[in-house]
Amino acid sequence: MTHRLHKPLLASTPENAPRVRVTYHDTDKMGHVYYGKYLVWFEIGRNELLRSTGDCYRNWEEREGVFLPVTSCWSEYRKGARYDDLVRIETAVTALTRATITFEYRIVNDATGELLATGGTRHAFVTADGRVARVADRLLPGLFPG
Amino acid sequence: MTHRLHKPLLASTPENAPRVRVTYHDTDKMGHVYYGKYLVWFEIGRNELLRSTGDCYRNWEEREGVFLPVTSCWSEYRKGARYDDLVRIETAVTALTRATITFEYRIVNDATGELLATGGTRHAFVTADGRVARVADRLLPGLFPG
Amino acid sequence: MTHRLHKPLLASTPENAPRVRVTYHDTDKMGHVYYGKYLVWFEIGRNELLRSTGDCYRNWEEREGVFLPVTSCWSEYRKGARYDDLVRIETAVTALTRATITFEYRIVNDATGELLATGGTRHAFVTADGRVARVADRLLPGLFPG
Amino acid sequence: MTHRLHKPLLASTPENAPRVRVTYHDTDKMGHVYYGKYLVWFEIGRNELLRSTGDCYRNWEEREGVFLPVTSCWSEYRKGARYDDLVRIETAVTALTRATITFEYRIVNDATGELLATGGTRHAFVTADGRVARVADRLLPGLFPG
Repeated sequence: MTHRLHKPLLASTPENAPRVRVTYHDTDKMGHVYYGKYLVWFEIGRNELLRSTGDCYRNWEEREGVFLPVTSCWSEYRKGARYDDLVRIETAVTALTRATITFEYRIVNDATGELLATGGTRHAFVTADGRVARVADRLLPGLFPG
Repeated sequence: MTHRLHKPLLASTPENAPRVRVTYHDTDKMGHVYYGKYLVWFEIGRNELLRSTGDCYRNWEEREGVFLPVTSCWSEYRKGARYDDLVRIETAVTALTRATITFEYRIVNDATGELLATGGTRHAFVTADGRVARVADRLLPGLFPG
Repeated sequence: MTHRLHKPLLASTPENAPRVRVTYHDTDKMGHVYYGKYLVWFEIGRNELLRSTGDCYRNWEEREGVFLPVTSCWSEYRKGARYDDLVRIETAVTALTRATITFEYRIVNDATGELLATGGTRHAFVTADGRVARVADRLLPGLFPG
Repeated sequence: MTHRLHKPLLASTPENAPRVRVTYHDTDKMGHVYYGKYLVWFEIGRNELLRSTGDCYRNWEEREGVFLPVTSCWSEYRKGARYDDLVRIETAVTALTRATITFEYRIVNDATGELLATGGTRHAFVTADGRVARVADRLLPGLFPG
């Protein structure tokens, strides 16, 4: 059963949403951030969201042997981030099963509050050799109904 | 009017579909290609597909002042590409209006034929200052019905 | 005249040296950070060092029309940064003429203090059309002898 | 003993030197290729140079358990590569011991022959657990004096 809720299951707060400063490396010749770069920001967002639970993704790998490969992703681009902008990465868990997790993201200009892009990633919980691992209830107990 | 066809409007051929060799840079610590890297391959695919028409995207920028920012993208990952694999980027134009274009992609292991990922990008035709440019019928006349 | 000093002309402090968290994107299949990624960290280091003077590189571009392309770089790798490590980017200006600037960098594991890599970049001050701009004494007056 | 020769020990030829097309992803807001990207091209250069011997780096990893981490690198930038340029990566082995190898690179605009950048990387031969592996005479027998 997929828990897809109006309210997200877990979301970053204004305080713990990570901020990143746009580098020259991130930009392209049109002067905006390259569209593929947002997927790196999504990764930063979900990593820090998991850390906010008190655990973290590195622990899942090292302690549990559990990995979260991306099975699909999507993004919509509204306004290009520009060099030296500080962007805020807002992240939420919006769906969860024992073997899959969906994150959604909002990339916001931290100075102006303007929404730059939205997106999502869906992941499978797998073991090191790629088999499905039905472990989300154990790793994220607070997100599952008792 | 959007031309969304069963048959793509334009597609790469086995001969002109670009091949790229997976680098160390492309891989991540799980040993597969990072999910964001596929968006760079998509860029290579659409760039070479446009070149196959006899024109090219750089010309559109320099000669026409027309740009194609990505407005949305999506990708599904089936099997991870690995270091030193040769991947083939198959690309098609699957929808076209005078002001928008949609490309779809298949990333294939060139040695085995195995499908690794699929995806798409939607773009707007815009001028250098970001205004909508209704120029697709002029730039891609062969793809529009007479 | 090049000012190459035992004491750097300007250096980050433990407080203002930027920290970055290693992402999956940064790593390669050996589990370490890819060697080219350190050059992005160097960019972050010099950008924040300039910001610590009260001005910033973006202002130089926008207000002065001055750019700082890299003319050479070098790096020595001692120990690989790993996924989810927090690294600290220590940066110093170690040489300066009116038309060139040299930054040197130390990448340190922020938790352990271990030195991971050192490096440097040399830059020219140029105008938007690439001509030499002898402006360092005006842009960085505090670093020039009166 | 280090073999540092006027003539390189091994060099790419005009035929087997790899070509890469500059992508939007490679460029930055000044319209040139980002300086860190050249290190990825260096990787492509050395990988294809090793392949030209009939063996390849992936085989060294998989068959021999031997890895070649970069211990230092350097680059000099003469002229910026630009979007959609085809660049040629010329690579040579310029020094070799049983436990280290040095590659040098020239990045050339393939259409004009103009030299864009030069650089080098020095590598150690190591085992998977990071110990020095004195194996270059076995892996590259043709480059060692009999």
